[in-house]
Amino acid sequence: MRQDVPLAQASRLLNHGPTVLVSAAHGPQRNLMAAAWAMPLDFDPPKVAVVIDRATFTRQLIAASGELALMVPSGAQADLTVTVGNTSGQALAEADPPTDKFAAQGIGHFAAQRIAAPLVEGCLAWLECRVIAWPELSAAHDLYLAEVVAAQADARVFHGGRWHFDDAPPQLRSLHHLGGGQFVLPGASVQGERRA
Amino acid sequence: MRQDVPLAQASRLLNHGPTVLVSAAHGPQRNLMAAAWAMPLDFDPPKVAVVIDRATFTRQLIAASGELALMVPSGAQADLTVTVGNTSGQALAEADPPTDKFAAQGIGHFAAQRIAAPLVEGCLAWLECRVIAWPELSAAHDLYLAEVVAAQADARVFHGGRWHFDDAPPQLRSLHHLGGGQFVLPGASVQGERRA
Repeated sequence: MRQDVPLAQASRLLNHGPTVLVSAAHGPQRNLMAAAWAMPLDFDPPKVAVVIDRATFTRQLIAASGELALMVPSGAQADLTVTVGNTSGQALAEADPPTDKFAAQGIGHFAAQRIAAPLVEGCLAWLECRVIAWPELSAAHDLYLAEVVAAQADARVFHGGRWHFDDAPPQLRSLHHLGGGQFVLPGASVQGERRA
Repeated sequence: MRQDVPLAQASRLLNHGPTVLVSAAHGPQRNLMAAAWAMPLDFDPPKVAVVIDRATFTRQLIAASGELALMVPSGAQADLTVTVGNTSGQALAEADPPTDKFAAQGIGHFAAQRIAAPLVEGCLAWLECRVIAWPELSAAHDLYLAEVVAAQADARVFHGGRWHFDDAPPQLRSLHHLGGGQFVLPGASVQGERRA
């Protein structure tokens, strides 16, 4: 079901505003967090913008490696999304012996195509990104810009350059964070028409 | 039904990734466009990030005034959103006599509280913003950062700092753009729980 997405279509993966998971790796260390504040920034080559709080361990790994992965978690991953969004990778890295969320929480993952960050199994889409350095922007606003260098999606719900949720079960719909761990799933679709 | 939203809650208005309308005004000129690429950037004071293409007339008005409004259109406004997103304010401004989308398309609007940009009637939320100047960022990536200085929402669907779509008709749900004028509306909600 996992299928490559042409880079020119990658912006569509985030166009409808889903909450994302963010992973990064540097040397032997890796981490995973959740972020509701991510969006496309350009079509082709595709770029994205994402807010990564300076207090996160993921931020350290992104700063050190210049890479990150954005993933669109599925309706089946609401608990996982809340859990990785509310636990500290730093604490696990400093434990004796050191560990990480993937190991501690048994999160299935696989190797990315172009970057070192691990990708989470069961997501609906995966965007592998290289940071476009704007140190002042990251310092002032925790904002990172990145170019998407590889993209994949679950072909059951993303094909032909567009999400198709109409016939998908809740487990195959994206998560959109309202607050406090509550998400809405995409529901009915509507076609807007240009008026004369 | 329109009610002030405390600024500390304003980020929640965009947290779930809706498509927005963007308005701006400068002197006698005003315009309105659609944008799918907008997100919160900070909580309190609330800030936002939005991509505004350099070819748009709205961009000229934002650059000249330093202000913009972001609005969350409702399910009833899918046609309006597609229409303003696919017509040129520049062409209307250069017509003889000059006009604008509000007049030409009969779009109901009302005065903002803190900025000059007109606000569109029937939206679900309205965020009045002042640009945080990053000229290099706007020049390189069409990206604008702004501080939210006033916020309102339709209290039927936003109260207590959170969207409540579960019992709302489609006409009172936000629009999330999939592509080509097709949107998904928020559907069922799910509560994620932190695992041990």
